[in-house]
Amino acid sequence: MVKIILDCDTGIDDALAIGYAINSPEIELLGITACYGMAPVDYTFRNTKTILSMLNSNVGVWRGSEKPLILEKEYDGKIHGMDGLGNMLGSVKEYDLEDCPSTHAVDYIIEQIHKFKKELTLVVTGPLTNLAKAVKKDPEIVQLVGRVVTMGGALTTPGNVSKYAEANYRIDPHAADFVFKSDLPITMVGLDVTRKTLLTEEDVGKWRSKDTEVSGFFADFTQFYLDAYKELHPYLKGCALHDPLAVGVAKFPDLVKTIPIHIQIDTEEDGIGRTIEDLYRKTPDTPNTEVCIQVDTEKFMNDFFKCII
Amino acid sequence: MVKIILDCDTGIDDALAIGYAINSPEIELLGITACYGMAPVDYTFRNTKTILSMLNSNVGVWRGSEKPLILEKEYDGKIHGMDGLGNMLGSVKEYDLEDCPSTHAVDYIIEQIHKFKKELTLVVTGPLTNLAKAVKKDPEIVQLVGRVVTMGGALTTPGNVSKYAEANYRIDPHAADFVFKSDLPITMVGLDVTRKTLLTEEDVGKWRSKDTEVSGFFADFTQFYLDAYKELHPYLKGCALHDPLAVGVAKFPDLVKTIPIHIQIDTEEDGIGRTIEDLYRKTPDTPNTEVCIQVDTEKFMNDFFKCII
Repeated sequence: MVKIILDCDTGIDDALAIGYAINSPEIELLGITACYGMAPVDYTFRNTKTILSMLNSNVGVWRGSEKPLILEKEYDGKIHGMDGLGNMLGSVKEYDLEDCPSTHAVDYIIEQIHKFKKELTLVVTGPLTNLAKAVKKDPEIVQLVGRVVTMGGALTTPGNVSKYAEANYRIDPHAADFVFKSDLPITMVGLDVTRKTLLTEEDVGKWRSKDTEVSGFFADFTQFYLDAYKELHPYLKGCALHDPLAVGVAKFPDLVKTIPIHIQIDTEEDGIGRTIEDLYRKTPDTPNTEVCIQVDTEKFMNDFFKCII
Repeated sequence: MVKIILDCDTGIDDALAIGYAINSPEIELLGITACYGMAPVDYTFRNTKTILSMLNSNVGVWRGSEKPLILEKEYDGKIHGMDGLGNMLGSVKEYDLEDCPSTHAVDYIIEQIHKFKKELTLVVTGPLTNLAKAVKKDPEIVQLVGRVVTMGGALTTPGNVSKYAEANYRIDPHAADFVFKSDLPITMVGLDVTRKTLLTEEDVGKWRSKDTEVSGFFADFTQFYLDAYKELHPYLKGCALHDPLAVGVAKFPDLVKTIPIHIQIDTEEDGIGRTIEDLYRKTPDTPNTEVCIQVDTEKFMNDFFKCII
């Protein structure tokens, strides 16, 4: 059983990742930290609480970063809706934040890493802002934590928000740059593999036909995501299960083939957010990142459908 | 024994590739085709003939393309010298071209592919112009040839002539684009692996200490290349054996680990020459390119030093 903290910016595929993690018998989900990303942080916190509540889970949620380290973030709602969940939940109300813990997500992450050390896998499915802040605040955690699995980047394949960059690292390239320059033991689950794990209209139809409150809700917000993919990425036969695959890789490391490499994040304007080999990095001799370059799609999809709802 | 045609733009590392191929008992070198590239084609033809003559080889040389399909090519002599061989040979004289065959390199390639079919490996260590022209002239060769090993591209690592592009594909991106859109069975030996096979000052010193005409000549032109690397790529501990590695991969396919992928060449201005996954390509289902992503450096370097001079 793997102990996991999920750091999410919930987000439709984050919501699917949460459902997948909650229902995975191989995962002990210690807690979820919310970060701004696919929506403002109050929304991602509320969305996470809502998903957990629908799944009858009492896993705790901690509210985290409100914006990138340096850049500003704007929201257009195109892929995840203005509320982050396909416009299913609408605006955040005051009562949505009533039981928000006073501990910041960054402090919760630091505390849990000290508590569980190598036993702990941190799965980040949003921008790397919370993690960067945690390392800045307590650099010791770099050597303590078992593994960091981050959904983000695109090494061998084009980006999804520019020719060069994937969304999570493009949103906060400076946090990503800081994290990849650290010695954290990183597994990068990028578009190289997540574009190979696609959910189809037919799959969502099966959820809908289960005709429960949960399956209907999941089908509805996922349909929004499917429709956005049809418009924005018509060459793909479905919508990419980016964030669930990161959970899958945390659960079953052998789902993917990886290459060891030092990754750098481009922070220059033209290629901002791009992931590429860091030629200048000489120490330590062992690259800190395992980049996923191939995935056992069938094995992952089977496990995902078995667990999700 | 593998039957090879070398398509070169000789060039210092092309010269090393020729020496390596000529002295490899596992290789039957059928002929060499010269392309413009590191110098104008009259120079690369002359350089190739000179190297072969020094090595007492009677392998034939065919003169090929003079310029890229669409772009213009300028020469600055920075890495290979204005003559392509570290300014060791100087200007081409009329007599250098006296025994130039009347058959064009493109026609020689077509003819040899028809003759040897699957037995033939075409190793291209320069721009892909000759090969693109051969396929345009006789598309049938795509299905006939055994294997194309091309030195070029940079999938997981920065380029060497821009952040995005490697020199051979940057020089003629339209030829590269055409070749990668064909169904040729391509193995791409890019900077991902060639930057891992470095020749050092010490290695060149060993050649010099052999004190033969050949070893002195090879040491002299390679020193020019080493000095250029020291200035332009100071983060590397030596000069990259780009072209010899392509010969090595043709000789011993298991020198490298590869991933199957559809590669596209960026022909837009910002990323021109960049190699990246082609998301839009749907047929055939099996990607046409094996991209080398890891190399057994020690095995290659040992074999290279055993054969070269």
